[in-house]
Amino acid sequence: MDAGPPAAHAGGVSLTAAIPWFHDASRRRRWLVGVSGGADSVALLHLLVDAGFRQLVVCHLDHRLRGRASAEDAAFVRRLAGRLGLAFETERAEVAAMAAASGESIETAARRARHLFFARCAARHRCPRVILAHHADDQAETMVWNLLRGSHGLKAMRRVRHLAAADGKALEIIRPLLAVRRADLREWLRARKLRWREDATNEQPVAVRNRLRHEVMPLLNAIAGRDVTPALVRGAEAAAELGQIAAWAVERAAATDPQGRLHLPTLRGLPPALQGAVVADYLERGGVTGLDRSLVGRVLGLLDPASGPAVNLPGGGSVRRRAGRLWIDR
Amino acid sequence: MDAGPPAAHAGGVSLTAAIPWFHDASRRRRWLVGVSGGADSVALLHLLVDAGFRQLVVCHLDHRLRGRASAEDAAFVRRLAGRLGLAFETERAEVAAMAAASGESIETAARRARHLFFARCAARHRCPRVILAHHADDQAETMVWNLLRGSHGLKAMRRVRHLAAADGKALEIIRPLLAVRRADLREWLRARKLRWREDATNEQPVAVRNRLRHEVMPLLNAIAGRDVTPALVRGAEAAAELGQIAAWAVERAAATDPQGRLHLPTLRGLPPALQGAVVADYLERGGVTGLDRSLVGRVLGLLDPASGPAVNLPGGGSVRRRAGRLWIDR
Repeated sequence: MDAGPPAAHAGGVSLTAAIPWFHDASRRRRWLVGVSGGADSVALLHLLVDAGFRQLVVCHLDHRLRGRASAEDAAFVRRLAGRLGLAFETERAEVAAMAAASGESIETAARRARHLFFARCAARHRCPRVILAHHADDQAETMVWNLLRGSHGLKAMRRVRHLAAADGKALEIIRPLLAVRRADLREWLRARKLRWREDATNEQPVAVRNRLRHEVMPLLNAIAGRDVTPALVRGAEAAAELGQIAAWAVERAAATDPQGRLHLPTLRGLPPALQGAVVADYLERGGVTGLDRSLVGRVLGLLDPASGPAVNLPGGGSVRRRAGRLWIDR
Repeated sequence: MDAGPPAAHAGGVSLTAAIPWFHDASRRRRWLVGVSGGADSVALLHLLVDAGFRQLVVCHLDHRLRGRASAEDAAFVRRLAGRLGLAFETERAEVAAMAAASGESIETAARRARHLFFARCAARHRCPRVILAHHADDQAETMVWNLLRGSHGLKAMRRVRHLAAADGKALEIIRPLLAVRRADLREWLRARKLRWREDATNEQPVAVRNRLRHEVMPLLNAIAGRDVTPALVRGAEAAAELGQIAAWAVERAAATDPQGRLHLPTLRGLPPALQGAVVADYLERGGVTGLDRSLVGRVLGLLDPASGPAVNLPGGGSVRRRAGRLWIDR
């Protein structure tokens, strides 16, 4: 006697309705799911199971950043996967040591460790698709945080993203909850008496994340006189749309010749901002590391025939100009 | 015996070098300059005079928002223009009453009042060019503020902007100081013992502006562990570049037919984000008011042949679909 899964409602919000991506074909496929044990990813996991997903692989990376609590988080997620009859994958990463060794921030080292972990899970399970629990409040905080870093202008998390994995295989990242509020996920868990691990978060450094959440967002809400998260999420959508348009424009600009080199007469006919986007895209596809506005600006300097004929690249090699073409020379 | 204008340096920064737009031809033209009497616009005025601009028209709108101090601001700017031998234009606008009557915010009513004032000055002096004193810190605060409003995604102030004036004539707005820091302008004024009116600002509501400047920005600096304004200014530049690319893409999409109607088969061949940008551009050029994401989404609904053949517009009239075309019907 199965009455079917209970409706996923919280605070008048239908959570499953917020996930149009949950269509029938998807449910029968295998998926990796990142589960830290915190409320967000635990809610995601239950929502997926309730929606009929059966071939889930629960993936938990122990970042070793919370002392004994880290091991308890991992044990909690292992038991949860077992109760739900799902496959479970876990590894430990000494993220603090990785960051110290590489000079990266904890945030960057943790992201790298997770990507490597997901790539290994993808290879083991022949499943290059990872579902993550980022929600609207994460998106809003990310918008503010990325705005402060300024490095890439106005980046937001994307609902579907393709990552190049270390072995050259692509990893698809799906974030079905980007329109759902944190409070609704918790209310949904509480209404169903489901448990989670408080503070089991693996994202930004805890200090920064906590200050964004507990100091910046309330201050912005107070100044604006309303909850600003929906506006930030709309801003993220607008930024994603501008990114799609820019990708179309780079393709339509058709600035590469049949040998895959940049064709300078074509490039010179484009508006300056699009020249920069074409060059950035060319360098990125060429696997150039350390790509930033300053490097793009130096390469754009090669459009001036009076400039030197080459620009050195940070990872070695150079971009060369000859016979009206630019190419990466290694 | 003229030793030439003193070099415009402050804190190691050459302010005139930050204004590459100050070339010779510009200096001989007539320009309107918006001067509130605050440090920013007073510094702008002196910088322009020092750089050799002679045909400046000092334009001061008294917003009547600071009681007796408003009249003293106006008197200060009048005396300053007189001492510099420049033309002076002033008007009073009862901005608070305008806002109460129209239901607009004080900010929106003040901006509208200033644009109308500049348009009248432009007509009187046959000079449709206005220089304004917005600087890097204003830009950073504007980025945060617009992010909170979310309405248009990620808008920043542009260095050069063309505004449609009420009489159909275009007004060109130039902001040469967008890369210059507020503190450098004040240091420059102090070093030259030049006076200004403290708090003579006419921009965002004072409460919001003050809270952004004195609460939000210091908190963001503290969390990021550095001055975040340069990052925000880079973000503004990146946003402006994406806007240029989107404008190129809309033009290159060539989705209008020879009669100026939207050609549906062409539109359907574009990525969804670009469809939205083409429709928004078409509606904006058609003078549609109340343009937002929701209206654009409804018009995009007309791409589905199974939908109704028309969408009503907020200002009256409608967008109609027939024979594979969309157009505005009034």
